[in-house]
Amino acid sequence: MMILVTYDVSFEDGNGQKRLRHIAKTCLNYGTRVQYSVFECDIDSSQWVVFKDTLLSIYDPSVDSLRFYKLGKGWRNRVEHHGAKRAVDIFQDDLII
Amino acid sequence: MMILVTYDVSFEDGNGQKRLRHIAKTCLNYGTRVQYSVFECDIDSSQWVVFKDTLLSIYDPSVDSLRFYKLGKGWRNRVEHHGAKRAVDIFQDDLII
Repeated sequence: MMILVTYDVSFEDGNGQKRLRHIAKTCLNYGTRVQYSVFECDIDSSQWVVFKDTLLSIYDPSVDSLRFYKLGKGWRNRVEHHGAKRAVDIFQDDLII
Repeated sequence: MMILVTYDVSFEDGNGQKRLRHIAKTCLNYGTRVQYSVFECDIDSSQWVVFKDTLLSIYDPSVDSLRFYKLGKGWRNRVEHHGAKRAVDIFQDDLII
C-alpha cells in the first residue's frame, strides 16, 4: 500500500534538529523523499506497523506533528508534481538518494 | 474534491521568502493548513483550475516544487494525524520544518 507521510518538527527546543534527522532517516528506510518533509512509502501492512511505531517513538507529540495518508489504489493517477526535484518513480527509476 | 497541496520553496535566492508567503497565502484562500507546507483543500473543479494556475504562476520551477494529491472519496478515513495541531503562523512563528 502507498502511504504518504508528512511531518512538522519544531525547533523550539534544542532537540528538534535531532528528531528531524531521526524521522527523515526512518522515512528513507521505508520510502522515497518527494519533498523535504514529504515521503511516499510503498510498504506492506506489517512494515507499516513497525514504521509507524518507530515514527511515533521519535517525534514529540507536544510540539511536532505527523500525518499519514493512505493513498489507495490508483494513487499514481492522482499525483501531480511540478518544478524542481523530479520525484523518483520507485517502480521505474533507479533509486537516487 | 479534496486536494492535498504540498510544497518546497527554496531560500537560495533572495525571493524565496516572498514566494513562500505568497504560496501559503494562496493556499489559505482555498484550504486548511494542516502542517507548515501541507494544505488540505476541499474545492470544486473550477476553483481548482484557478487555484492551480495561481500557484504555478508564483513558484519558481527551477528551484521550488509543488505536489498535488487528489485524495478521492473516503479520504477522511485514510488520514491520520498525530501530535501537535496548532496552526503555524508563518508571519509570526519561528520556522518549523
